[in-house]
Amino acid sequence: NAEVPEQMITENYITPPELFYIRHHHPVPYLTEEDVKNYHVKFDLTQYGGKEIEISLADLKKLKKVEVVTTLQCSGNRRSGYNDVKKTSGTSWGQGAVSTAKWGGARLKDVLELAGLDDPFAAEDEGLEYVRFESLDGMKSSITIDKAMNPYGDCILAYEMNGETLPRDHGFPVRLIVPGYSAVRNVKWVSKVELSKYEAEGPWQRGLNYKTLPPSVTDAKSVDIEKMPSMMVGSIFSGITNLDFGKHINASTAKSYKAGDSIMVKAGGWAWAGGGRNIVRVDLTGDNGETWTTAEIQQGGDQKFGRAWAWVFWSCELPATIQDDGTVHVHSKALDHAFNVQPEHCRHTWNIRGLGNNSWHSKHMKVN
Amino acid sequence: NAEVPEQMITENYITPPELFYIRHHHPVPYLTEEDVKNYHVKFDLTQYGGKEIEISLADLKKLKKVEVVTTLQCSGNRRSGYNDVKKTSGTSWGQGAVSTAKWGGARLKDVLELAGLDDPFAAEDEGLEYVRFESLDGMKSSITIDKAMNPYGDCILAYEMNGETLPRDHGFPVRLIVPGYSAVRNVKWVSKVELSKYEAEGPWQRGLNYKTLPPSVTDAKSVDIEKMPSMMVGSIFSGITNLDFGKHINASTAKSYKAGDSIMVKAGGWAWAGGGRNIVRVDLTGDNGETWTTAEIQQGGDQKFGRAWAWVFWSCELPATIQDDGTVHVHSKALDHAFNVQPEHCRHTWNIRGLGNNSWHSKHMKVN
Repeated sequence: NAEVPEQMITENYITPPELFYIRHHHPVPYLTEEDVKNYHVKFDLTQYGGKEIEISLADLKKLKKVEVVTTLQCSGNRRSGYNDVKKTSGTSWGQGAVSTAKWGGARLKDVLELAGLDDPFAAEDEGLEYVRFESLDGMKSSITIDKAMNPYGDCILAYEMNGETLPRDHGFPVRLIVPGYSAVRNVKWVSKVELSKYEAEGPWQRGLNYKTLPPSVTDAKSVDIEKMPSMMVGSIFSGITNLDFGKHINASTAKSYKAGDSIMVKAGGWAWAGGGRNIVRVDLTGDNGETWTTAEIQQGGDQKFGRAWAWVFWSCELPATIQDDGTVHVHSKALDHAFNVQPEHCRHTWNIRGLGNNSWHSKHMKVN
Repeated sequence: NAEVPEQMITENYITPPELFYIRHHHPVPYLTEEDVKNYHVKFDLTQYGGKEIEISLADLKKLKKVEVVTTLQCSGNRRSGYNDVKKTSGTSWGQGAVSTAKWGGARLKDVLELAGLDDPFAAEDEGLEYVRFESLDGMKSSITIDKAMNPYGDCILAYEMNGETLPRDHGFPVRLIVPGYSAVRNVKWVSKVELSKYEAEGPWQRGLNYKTLPPSVTDAKSVDIEKMPSMMVGSIFSGITNLDFGKHINASTAKSYKAGDSIMVKAGGWAWAGGGRNIVRVDLTGDNGETWTTAEIQQGGDQKFGRAWAWVFWSCELPATIQDDGTVHVHSKALDHAFNVQPEHCRHTWNIRGLGNNSWHSKHMKVN
């Protein structure tokens, strides 16, 4: 498991594969040359009255290639912020469990049609509401049939990352891309796809791992996990990756300022909302919310409405008040296109698994 | 313009037409019997290389009838809460500018196909990203082509409300239903539909009326309105409509409690998220966020994932601390399926038009 170093997150809009964060639940499957040659994904449509067929990498490549730029974020990104409120379980990520790539592959819809799913509405009427996925490493996950079959859903079975063959760590030879969803649903090393009346079995879909419990629940045994939905679509997030003096002052001239003074600073960072929701604004404050300055969106602002699968990068010059300890504190909050905002604190979203900490992001800098 | 009285909001899951809130920008169009007989909607597909054709009410009724239960909410609902922070412009709604109905009509996708839109992807590739609507009263609005043509988008041209002919106040003879979107996009008295490269003209789509400006902007003239997106998809909301002693105590036994005591109270209300997002939880607190109790979802909890167009009703018994003035204060916050939450305060989402105040909802009750 590896996080992207904070200042490197916004160095590249498309994260290079060697920087792209890594989160695995199991060891990375090793495939021999022979395994790769014989690689295929099983499609089980027997529930739909269809067959069980095998689709090879060559079959996938015969279908129209689609490229989708998506941001993937671990559901536990920024878990460390929760730990300041109360200890959670799980990897103590900073803000670096997030990256973006351009994935190339076949549209899941096209592959499911090739496998025999000719009428998804009929399937749904029969109760077949889920498409379930299995990975070579034993990971199981599911999405609903409308996300898979929606012509605007942009789900793909990817065999390329940033124009190159998918790296082993990122799901070689075939991974699922479910744009706008938590990274865990973007199953790597896909080995099986099936229609079902029920969501996937196992801890990653039905277990505690991806369930956001209420803030007052400190013992997961006290609740009925089955009744709690699993993380699927990502929430609204932003992160400040850079904070400096900009062109206004420098570390040397800053010495003439004192606590209580307001100085101009420059911040840069990223923002992302799940579900294809565009970032409509990122606002920053250097005086703990008394005033807000709107950032300039620098990259990613031109994504289609409702299909903004990738992050935006932003930059902002704003006034910040020097605190008694000689630092300035800057907070960012992003708004998605439904005008949902990041909450101010994480103490009211705290959950024992430490999932989805999307409160205002904060960064401070020593001024004098 | 008429709000639903607070305690009546959750009396009926499907709001009766006579209670359904009303918000008009202009006088309600009056149609003679002759007008009704000759009623048709103009479809202009000339931008797509098609024709301008007229579709009558009878034509609409020949298409498959689809029924969709959606909640409609005014973008200014709960504006009054903002006015406590700083004065906004616009009607000072409480929480009653929200209602739910079962709409019956033809799928917009089917009608657009009937009008000649055979390849929406080709249309989009040509830059025709918008479907624009005009109303008899001069209202103009638009949505993106993927919402209109998405087979799971559930947009309809409705001629029925709760199984009856659409009432005049609610758009008779034909209104648009855009599930999950702010009510303003659900254009009444639809007279024209067209494909376009650009969003609709006029103040309701491009003007200040439905634009959520940054909190520090107190003079709309200081910003470039064209660059700000308009309200489209609704955000995450909840409202407490009832607060009482439940079965635990009554107004008479309550007298024995004093400030600082914790008593059990019972609250009921609604919650809704735009964009088809299911409500996964409503949490309530009676001690200003120290502890949270999760409500029971009583109606609306069985909607499909991602197509939860209507609200849920909930009920919750929770401990509440008696304040020095003898009252208890209860706050509700809902979570949508992306685990976005309502913000604690509205002071950081304040905007001069007073749109989208979705902060925690609060209600208090005199105990002794």
